[in-house]
Amino acid sequence: MPSILIITTSLRGNTAKMVPPVVEGITAEGVAARVCEPDAVAIADLRAADGIIIGSPTRFGGVDWRIKRLFDEVAIQGYPGPLEGKAGGAFAAGSRAGSGAELTLLNAIHLLLNHGLVIQGDPYGPHYGPVALGEPSAAVLEACRAAGGRWARLVKRLAGG
Amino acid sequence: MPSILIITTSLRGNTAKMVPPVVEGITAEGVAARVCEPDAVAIADLRAADGIIIGSPTRFGGVDWRIKRLFDEVAIQGYPGPLEGKAGGAFAAGSRAGSGAELTLLNAIHLLLNHGLVIQGDPYGPHYGPVALGEPSAAVLEACRAAGGRWARLVKRLAGG
Amino acid sequence: MPSILIITTSLRGNTAKMVPPVVEGITAEGVAARVCEPDAVAIADLRAADGIIIGSPTRFGGVDWRIKRLFDEVAIQGYPGPLEGKAGGAFAAGSRAGSGAELTLLNAIHLLLNHGLVIQGDPYGPHYGPVALGEPSAAVLEACRAAGGRWARLVKRLAGG
Amino acid sequence: MPSILIITTSLRGNTAKMVPPVVEGITAEGVAARVCEPDAVAIADLRAADGIIIGSPTRFGGVDWRIKRLFDEVAIQGYPGPLEGKAGGAFAAGSRAGSGAELTLLNAIHLLLNHGLVIQGDPYGPHYGPVALGEPSAAVLEACRAAGGRWARLVKRLAGG
Repeated sequence: MPSILIITTSLRGNTAKMVPPVVEGITAEGVAARVCEPDAVAIADLRAADGIIIGSPTRFGGVDWRIKRLFDEVAIQGYPGPLEGKAGGAFAAGSRAGSGAELTLLNAIHLLLNHGLVIQGDPYGPHYGPVALGEPSAAVLEACRAAGGRWARLVKRLAGG
Repeated sequence: MPSILIITTSLRGNTAKMVPPVVEGITAEGVAARVCEPDAVAIADLRAADGIIIGSPTRFGGVDWRIKRLFDEVAIQGYPGPLEGKAGGAFAAGSRAGSGAELTLLNAIHLLLNHGLVIQGDPYGPHYGPVALGEPSAAVLEACRAAGGRWARLVKRLAGG
Repeated sequence: MPSILIITTSLRGNTAKMVPPVVEGITAEGVAARVCEPDAVAIADLRAADGIIIGSPTRFGGVDWRIKRLFDEVAIQGYPGPLEGKAGGAFAAGSRAGSGAELTLLNAIHLLLNHGLVIQGDPYGPHYGPVALGEPSAAVLEACRAAGGRWARLVKRLAGG
Repeated sequence: MPSILIITTSLRGNTAKMVPPVVEGITAEGVAARVCEPDAVAIADLRAADGIIIGSPTRFGGVDWRIKRLFDEVAIQGYPGPLEGKAGGAFAAGSRAGSGAELTLLNAIHLLLNHGLVIQGDPYGPHYGPVALGEPSAAVLEACRAAGGRWARLVKRLAGG
């Protein structure tokens, strides 16, 4: 059974509320989902996953420093190469339109691309990944579920399924 | 009297609704505001302005192609140099969280920085410029007014006022 | 036989010099490559391709306005959906370090992600796609060949090959 | 005498080599320059400075995690407001064209804009700030000197000088 690792941390609880529907969307496609705080992720966890998703609160237009440290200090083991070709994606929570949530999301995607991951955009929903502004609305939670499903299907497609 | 040129175009009318409060915010500070479609802007207009603001609908994570053409084909006259040191800023309208509106805004800011303009962020409101998601709410219209005021004060500060 | 469409335009000839090695890298993997100026691309060309690559000169931190117009005016036909799930990628030429070539590349990638394309980063070479600064060096031409090969292999992998 | 704080860290020594010419460019304009590792910066240092410059190695398309932590954990004291209206800027070192050095620079600029700093682009040189690819060349060192001078002049202009 393929599996996706969700690396996430929350500031005011809004990013955390996006996680259950993401997990639901993934598991509904027959892919396992594991959720980890960045401090608890080891290089073996990254290597073992078929997909890696970053969920971050908006921190001045970029991911939380703990997530950045994970990539600077842990994901670099064996670099370049160990994460190449896996599926990737990101979601972010911010306070309001213009808060930097999209930049945070793109900052996460740049991290993943740099390691050789495969990212798919979404023409139907939030294009680069789900974004919550304040408390996630029902529409945002549904977008999280849909994104989880898309990420799981990408994992299966990349596995030749 | 210093003046600010607002270069803007609209797709569904939401960007257009952001313009009047931006103008109000500028003129309330004693700075003149002139609004122009990108096709109507000549290099002399750009040179004459003390500040240049771009207002764009979200078009696939970047500014409308007519605005891009203005910078590629018109603003390039005399480049590098003629726009250096002027105040700059941007606002954008998109459909929803994750629509690419922040990317569009940043794409506009990159254009302006490349020409040597001076950009100020905002720690209090939308950090890189006002963003409307769908029909601009009262809070967004107020953010537009506040941004207009900030841009006008930046023009005056840069003039040594 | 799967095929990749390369949409490209050149300013001083440096982007144009990146095209032949990109084509070589693609065809060496048994994938067809077709090169088109943005003005000559119709929606049927975009739909028919299994992969879409954008090659742009650096134009103020973004893609050439003709490429932007193609996406704003032509690629939008039938949007959202017709380009979803295809492979994507980008390359760019600029004048020197800090010229905006990486921003141009990312601007192209945002366009493609917005349409639902699949982008893979490269941990071994230029991470987001090949970048030439001035006349492309032998190392840059080799990076173009390698990127062409990676894009072709992504097309085949996405086809379940 | 106005002063600029340079927050910097180095990985392979290339970012460190950019610091002396930046300092020279600043002091030649009659502005003081102070250089600090991110771990040694207190909120009082940020408040006391008239300008804040970030110099970072390229770390997966973003600033080093220690710089990110400084903004997430230290610069946030009293936020929003204490850094508003100061001059800002950034420089970065990477390995080669396409290494992510421009993204790193822009990531730093987004941090600074979010705090309300004032950023000026450069139409003549590297547009968003100096970038070294590998060992800084004489041209890059000269660009660092020029950027230092520009940042110092921006500090003086913002002070009404």
